[in-house]
Amino acid sequence: MSTIVFCSVNNATRTSARRFVMSRLKGRAEPLLKSPATDSLSPPSVPGAPWLTGGTGVRFVSHGAAGRSTSGRSRRGALALSGAAAVAAVAGLLANADHIRQADMATKVVPSAEQKETEGDVSARCRGFMCRPVTDVSELQERSGEMRTRMEMLIMETQAEFCRALEEVDGGTFKVDRWQRKEGGGGITCVMQDGKVFEKAGVNVSVVFGHLTEEAAKQMRSRGKVLKGKDGKLPFCAMGVSSVIHPNNPHIPTVHFNYRYFEVEEEDGSKQWWFGGGTDLTPVYIDKDDAFLFHNTLKEACDKHHPQYYTEFKKWCDRYFYVRHRGETRGIGGIFFDDLDSPSQEEAFEFVKSCARTVVPCYLPIVLRHQNDSFTEEEKDWQQVRRGRYVEFNLVYDRGVKFGLATPGSRIESILMSLPLTARWEYMHEPAEGSREAEMLEALRNPKEWA
Amino acid sequence: MSTIVFCSVNNATRTSARRFVMSRLKGRAEPLLKSPATDSLSPPSVPGAPWLTGGTGVRFVSHGAAGRSTSGRSRRGALALSGAAAVAAVAGLLANADHIRQADMATKVVPSAEQKETEGDVSARCRGFMCRPVTDVSELQERSGEMRTRMEMLIMETQAEFCRALEEVDGGTFKVDRWQRKEGGGGITCVMQDGKVFEKAGVNVSVVFGHLTEEAAKQMRSRGKVLKGKDGKLPFCAMGVSSVIHPNNPHIPTVHFNYRYFEVEEEDGSKQWWFGGGTDLTPVYIDKDDAFLFHNTLKEACDKHHPQYYTEFKKWCDRYFYVRHRGETRGIGGIFFDDLDSPSQEEAFEFVKSCARTVVPCYLPIVLRHQNDSFTEEEKDWQQVRRGRYVEFNLVYDRGVKFGLATPGSRIESILMSLPLTARWEYMHEPAEGSREAEMLEALRNPKEWA
Repeated sequence: MSTIVFCSVNNATRTSARRFVMSRLKGRAEPLLKSPATDSLSPPSVPGAPWLTGGTGVRFVSHGAAGRSTSGRSRRGALALSGAAAVAAVAGLLANADHIRQADMATKVVPSAEQKETEGDVSARCRGFMCRPVTDVSELQERSGEMRTRMEMLIMETQAEFCRALEEVDGGTFKVDRWQRKEGGGGITCVMQDGKVFEKAGVNVSVVFGHLTEEAAKQMRSRGKVLKGKDGKLPFCAMGVSSVIHPNNPHIPTVHFNYRYFEVEEEDGSKQWWFGGGTDLTPVYIDKDDAFLFHNTLKEACDKHHPQYYTEFKKWCDRYFYVRHRGETRGIGGIFFDDLDSPSQEEAFEFVKSCARTVVPCYLPIVLRHQNDSFTEEEKDWQQVRRGRYVEFNLVYDRGVKFGLATPGSRIESILMSLPLTARWEYMHEPAEGSREAEMLEALRNPKEWA
Repeated sequence: MSTIVFCSVNNATRTSARRFVMSRLKGRAEPLLKSPATDSLSPPSVPGAPWLTGGTGVRFVSHGAAGRSTSGRSRRGALALSGAAAVAAVAGLLANADHIRQADMATKVVPSAEQKETEGDVSARCRGFMCRPVTDVSELQERSGEMRTRMEMLIMETQAEFCRALEEVDGGTFKVDRWQRKEGGGGITCVMQDGKVFEKAGVNVSVVFGHLTEEAAKQMRSRGKVLKGKDGKLPFCAMGVSSVIHPNNPHIPTVHFNYRYFEVEEEDGSKQWWFGGGTDLTPVYIDKDDAFLFHNTLKEACDKHHPQYYTEFKKWCDRYFYVRHRGETRGIGGIFFDDLDSPSQEEAFEFVKSCARTVVPCYLPIVLRHQNDSFTEEEKDWQQVRRGRYVEFNLVYDRGVKFGLATPGSRIESILMSLPLTARWEYMHEPAEGSREAEMLEALRNPKEWA
């Protein structure tokens, strides 16, 4: 099923990573979508961050053309589930039960005042990716104005940007697996294991398409809506980038992000579409500076698109990443949203792009801060116990994982790359009162405001 | 919620353990239910098995009186699910989807020709347990003839027999947690962690009772049957013993067993009841002698009750312990059954008793054989990868775990004691062709006959 392709490395994404990290480390708030051409930061002097140096390359920028679309928001919840069940390999592509409330809120979005960037040549941009995209480059060039092309370019670019940044910190290299899905589409799974800094780092792109099954269509009908397909078939397309990074050092938190896009076509040719995604942090120990940097970076990205986005999506994140049987959140949250289809496709995409571009500046400064921290055996053990809880969430609750595992033909290794290399379950583990471990638990039992 | 009670150790269960292990090691097939009074084996000379020596004590034996009961088999499937969902803490008390076929087969059971044993004094027998039973001893004495008493005595005795045997091999001591369930009943959880031989060993007894919720009753009605409760309430009782043992040495397999009993009372006072259970083995490497001993011991126990039991319950076990997304069984199987309510309560109980008593003779000889085997780092790694799969089964598929986790008020630590102390997930792990690891995988992908 999978073929392995190693692609040449270039400096495509270093500039943006450098800009964000530098601005965080210097405590400056910099425009998130500044063009690389105007970037004139002096070479960084951050120890242990060779990836911050130099680099020129292609950046992903949007243009103003919106894809064909209709609104049809009310059908999304059921469709998100059915679609994901059908496409399987796209782990984490699923809607949260709160989608309707969130989508309602999304209608209040005010247009971003930000200046639009111009897109470069598809073929040139592809050279910066971890390997060639799932869709043929010639096809992407032909339909470069369509949202599915623009989103595929964004997720490929996000994957490359993040992988390069991690490689430079770690010194290791991602294994790149390009795989195909029999029913249509495929993906690119990048994994680095047993690295100097990262115990296991996975960054996955999936682009899958085909037709919704009768079962999926039936599920939609049972929710009160009939989606009319041509000859009973509903063409769909689902794509996303998702990642989980488990570092070795217990003082570096685990990070997860996922950004995704769905399209489904009805009989009359009109398309329903929506975006989803989020980024969240799972530390082993509370570090308030890390928590502030992470959340504040997300908040700044959100604030440029809607004054309520951060507040609402932070709450949604705490609700979603909840290990119910433990009465704990998985980590200290971040943002999570789904069913985003307003105020326009263009503006929703701009928001998702802003989010995707915060991944490196949210996380890399934290890695740099702690990569040389010393740690004890006890701290490592506590990390392993927390990893066990991470496994519990991912296998018991995570919708993307659940539906992926339940769907024949899905690529299991890409779904389960999110599991840590090692984990531990101690019977009746309870941290001592007043300990740093107890402080961590308290933050998971009562989610806090960090930004 | 839990209180910790340490009870004094006695020799209650050593005799039976010794008899079975000795017969296996000598290659003799011995009657499974031979009375301890007739046991005249000479002291064993098995190195490293101090628990085989001597021991006189109380054995669990049945009498002929059956509890009040009606048949009502057709209602069991739904009830098993609903009941377990309601009682939560009794992990693994759930019916398999195949229950109807199995129950049909069970009607063909021929009465066992085996001689009935006589029960001893309840109070005296309780002194052999890991701690006092969930139900007050005075209450057990008052209703000593009822099946729920006899089953509680059996599961307590099975727990003690197994824990003592493991303690003697390991040299460690089980931590004994006695816990209560707010809604009725409770349990005794015994865990030994970081032992010389056992990385993590858990043996849990649960005895829970109360009333079925309206939701549970509704579920039953939706399966076409209406259970009539007094004032809408259906008193129920569910109990079981379950255990998972994860040894340190990769040449000693993991074992799991679970034996359980359900009762529910209808408006007219009639009771529906059924048994379920099974024992299965999860080796890290195939050892044909171990596989034969394990399966053959189970087969001998089954054969005394019905000529088809072993064959059918072995198949059921392979179907149940199947990690679908991997296309592998969890281990090399054993037996698994549910909804057993025929040919009579007495005979069904006798069968369950035979099964519970095979636990030590199924497993301990294998532990003794391999406890001093040397192993490499690679073998330990492979064990850790297999442990990861064990976690996947338990969190993704195991019905007892799933319903337990989903039910508020359940004792999570007793449900999740089945997880190994440590586990590992390597991306794209694939054993080399012709290796012993590949041989193991092959046996999991294509279940074999071992007896």
